[in-house]
Amino acid sequence: MDNFTIKPIGYVQNDFNEKFGIPRQSGRAPSVISRIIFYPEYRNKEALRCIDGFSHLWLIFDFSKAHKDGWSPLVRPPRLGGNKKVGVFASRSPFRPNHIGLSSVKFIGREKTKDYGTVILVSGADLLNQTPIYDVKPYLPFSDCHVDAVGGYADKEKDYKLNVELCNEIYNFLPQEKINALIECLSDDPRPSYQEDGKEYGMAFANVNVKFCVNNGTVKVLSANKIEK
Amino acid sequence: MDNFTIKPIGYVQNDFNEKFGIPRQSGRAPSVISRIIFYPEYRNKEALRCIDGFSHLWLIFDFSKAHKDGWSPLVRPPRLGGNKKVGVFASRSPFRPNHIGLSSVKFIGREKTKDYGTVILVSGADLLNQTPIYDVKPYLPFSDCHVDAVGGYADKEKDYKLNVELCNEIYNFLPQEKINALIECLSDDPRPSYQEDGKEYGMAFANVNVKFCVNNGTVKVLSANKIEK
Repeated sequence: MDNFTIKPIGYVQNDFNEKFGIPRQSGRAPSVISRIIFYPEYRNKEALRCIDGFSHLWLIFDFSKAHKDGWSPLVRPPRLGGNKKVGVFASRSPFRPNHIGLSSVKFIGREKTKDYGTVILVSGADLLNQTPIYDVKPYLPFSDCHVDAVGGYADKEKDYKLNVELCNEIYNFLPQEKINALIECLSDDPRPSYQEDGKEYGMAFANVNVKFCVNNGTVKVLSANKIEK
Repeated sequence: MDNFTIKPIGYVQNDFNEKFGIPRQSGRAPSVISRIIFYPEYRNKEALRCIDGFSHLWLIFDFSKAHKDGWSPLVRPPRLGGNKKVGVFASRSPFRPNHIGLSSVKFIGREKTKDYGTVILVSGADLLNQTPIYDVKPYLPFSDCHVDAVGGYADKEKDYKLNVELCNEIYNFLPQEKINALIECLSDDPRPSYQEDGKEYGMAFANVNVKFCVNNGTVKVLSANKIEK
């Protein structure tokens, strides 16, 4: 049972500067755009040759904020109301041995940048800004796409969605595409569990702090304030 | 750019004692059964609670035989005839930074064993016997199954299959289910490239050494011999 040392090949750059509010799986907020920045050692456009033929990619990443909490054999998936426990290997919880995460994202394209060389653009990532990336792999439909797959307790998650009512200030701070992304994140219900209708929550997205509460399946945004740096 | 230490949670036990002959992606040989043995620290049946509701699992594993060869920005996928090069991040090649592999497998069930506690049974793994496993995750249809996904140069792989003609000796050494698995592996074409019709190859599977050659889309098994330990 040897230990191995792994080293990030790059990291994520996006509008999620806090954990709270990030959708709980990839693809829930398709309007969220993330860039994958490669570290100089891996910044080689040859390493991306033929990637353009793929519609989706896998990101293997580090649950960097979960290290300090270690892992636990049993976890409480937020979608089960926070009361039911399931095994860590029957969940995608961050609190797992090795803290390695797996997300499929839509490949949008690559971009040549002045500061970072060629970067990759993806949509739908459920990852914190600056998340370390260990690997990028193409999504292979013939081996990765199982149309007959059964998703256990997680199957009911698919159709869960809240309505979203914005406040007008938000249009002062964010362009329409980021507003779309924020709506998707809010409709995925960022709350830690389902018991707290009426309670006020705060979420940071891009350069905006949003306060909201949920009542009877509707997220109402109460205020939006610019985050001063 | 921190380095991280990761530690296998367990390993694979199956009939692939050599790299040659292992199908190039998961699911190509569904009759191949593998066991996931957990190391004592992770041998906790609570960690598997609710896993039985899932039909498929992800295995995150170590390409343990590829470490010594490092990684390369360009690789030659065997299915492209060995001549065309693609970027390592546009491939599932083992010769990649961090040597981390990803395979989806069918979850068959769990088994209580005397020596290893509770083990997991899966089918379709494209992994060498003793492969270190870093993580087991449930396959979540709503985020992992992309029916619209496009697989670039790898899309043509799906329908590739050779006919297989066995020799009679094989029935002396292997039960029918292992013969089925061997047929699937052979029909996936274990050869390093496609140029060498007529050449003789040898492949080890379970306790049998098989010699075969390929002509015009048919694998002909020439002989089968028991491997003496």
